Amino acid sequence: MDAAVAQTPTDRLMDALAPEMAAVNALIRARMQSQHAPRIPEVTAHLVEAGGKRLRPLLTLAAAKLCGYDGPYHIHLAATVEFIHTATLLHDDVVDESQQRRGRPTANLLWDNKSSVLVGDYLLARAFQLMTDTGVMRVLTILSNASATISEGEVLQLTAAQDLGTDEPVYLQIIRGKTAALFSAATEVGGVIANAPEDQVRALFDYGDALGIAFQIADDLLDYGGSSAVIGKNTGDDFRERKLTLPVIKAVARADDAERAFWRRTFEKGDQRAGDLEQAFALLTRHGAMDDARADALAWSEKARAALKGLPAGEIRDILDELADFVVARIA
Amino acid sequence: MDAAVAQTPTDRLMDALAPEMAAVNALIRARMQSQHAPRIPEVTAHLVEAGGKRLRPLLTLAAAKLCGYDGPYHIHLAATVEFIHTATLLHDDVVDESQQRRGRPTANLLWDNKSSVLVGDYLLARAFQLMTDTGVMRVLTILSNASATISEGEVLQLTAAQDLGTDEPVYLQIIRGKTAALFSAATEVGGVIANAPEDQVRALFDYGDALGIAFQIADDLLDYGGSSAVIGKNTGDDFRERKLTLPVIKAVARADDAERAFWRRTFEKGDQRAGDLEQAFALLTRHGAMDDARADALAWSEKARAALKGLPAGEIRDILDELADFVVARIA
Repeated sequence: MDAAVAQTPTDRLMDALAPEMAAVNALIRARMQSQHAPRIPEVTAHLVEAGGKRLRPLLTLAAAKLCGYDGPYHIHLAATVEFIHTATLLHDDVVDESQQRRGRPTANLLWDNKSSVLVGDYLLARAFQLMTDTGVMRVLTILSNASATISEGEVLQLTAAQDLGTDEPVYLQIIRGKTAALFSAATEVGGVIANAPEDQVRALFDYGDALGIAFQIADDLLDYGGSSAVIGKNTGDDFRERKLTLPVIKAVARADDAERAFWRRTFEKGDQRAGDLEQAFALLTRHGAMDDARADALAWSEKARAALKGLPAGEIRDILDELADFVVARIA
Repeated sequence: MDAAVAQTPTDRLMDALAPEMAAVNALIRARMQSQHAPRIPEVTAHLVEAGGKRLRPLLTLAAAKLCGYDGPYHIHLAATVEFIHTATLLHDDVVDESQQRRGRPTANLLWDNKSSVLVGDYLLARAFQLMTDTGVMRVLTILSNASATISEGEVLQLTAAQDLGTDEPVYLQIIRGKTAALFSAATEVGGVIANAPEDQVRALFDYGDALGIAFQIADDLLDYGGSSAVIGKNTGDDFRERKLTLPVIKAVARADDAERAFWRRTFEKGDQRAGDLEQAFALLTRHGAMDDARADALAWSEKARAALKGLPAGEIRDILDELADFVVARIA
């Protein structure tokens, strides 16, 4: 069973939830249509069918199944979560002026910013329509709260990213918005729709929250090389874009005056010169910032695994447990 | 009572609903706050406190009062409607690259497009949170449907605006999205929250729909001078921006080959020369396009007034009746 061993936890979730995921994909395709504006499904299909991992809808399906749900609405909620995610990507690419996503040109490049903004709005509205189909008010509250946290986190990132005063609590707030809020809403609504006991719903929220935070810290570490600060072809983007992430926040907190001047020049003033990236890597290593950020990611991963203990044992829980390891395996 | 006579119907609604409107404004101020991102209330306040007429929330309050509602949630719904409207304005100004709104620089100019996109998203999420506070699933369905219609109409306008194939049904769809969908949702949810009989809810929807359509046709006519096609300092923007509106759609439908070539050059190709605007005005007049579009607006205004007949008589209904006249008085 070598093939099975080589499978990622996401692949295993996809296998375990194949019929449900097929229903989610069919619902996504149906609801991304527009009776009047063909531009909408064109833009949406470009993103939705670009081969994303569908991790968020899988989390909703997994949570519902774990809690023994046998109704139809986890499908709607999984599609809702994917629509919110897709709308966020469309708007993010406008905000970041991105040119590529998942190895393909972004929608704002292929069409224009206008289409990305408006189609994103359409998908958000569609997401809310899908939720109302469930008739369960509490999932609407959870998902509209998540939407507010997501956009609040993005605005915060916009204003805080180049500000050396950004500390770890602000960073946590930003990455909750960027990643963890939708993860935790995805798992929580799965439990709510299944009418799971409150302690299980809480455990599902905690799992999604910790998983999302571990995932994003690992992502931010990988931008500086992952296990150790090494310049490679995929590293240094956050430095060049002056996005303050956890390793740099830790290094800044430990900086002497000269180092602080370096961070101020490169991040706040955006005055970056030859050799600066190397210097940044050296400071991150010297202060143990990489090691400490990695330890934080591993602790969040452990917290995710701990949350699972209160949930029904079985294949799904086992895969979710592996998933918590998997998101930090890249930096372990 | 000369001062009273000079009052617009909107002023009179504002007087009749002053305590409710004060509560709406307080709720808007409370909910536009952000615990973490001060940029959000800054941008929102710039728009929300710019002295807009608050017509949409007034419609919700009026509909609820007309149907005898005495609970608290029309306040939430009115604030919801204003948040959706404000989010739409923020995104519209990005899409249209606008520089001015209500006589002041736009948010995208004062801050940047990124802030306008993300704060708009935040206000949409806040709108959905406000709706869920009511606990009434049907208002969520109505308002999420309206949101989808709004963004669908905007995407349609993006792709159809410069296409001479755009006919009157497509135009109607566009202005429903642009204006009427939120008007009709605003009035309909007022009836729903008041638990009004179905025929009254339907009448409220019809009133808002027809009012919004009359309002937008009148607006589009005014861009060509209103009662007759005359070039003035506030006319010709839609021509210059190549936005196909009802008068031009009617003139294109009646154009001979030479005229069609003119419209194709100026709208589809965007090749506009000295004297073209005068020529456009001449064609609009020659084909009776202005008169016919005005007749359409008046017919929609009448339709709005007719819908009111099924609703409880009294001061509020009288003002809504006047309002239907008022929105087309500018072109009568």
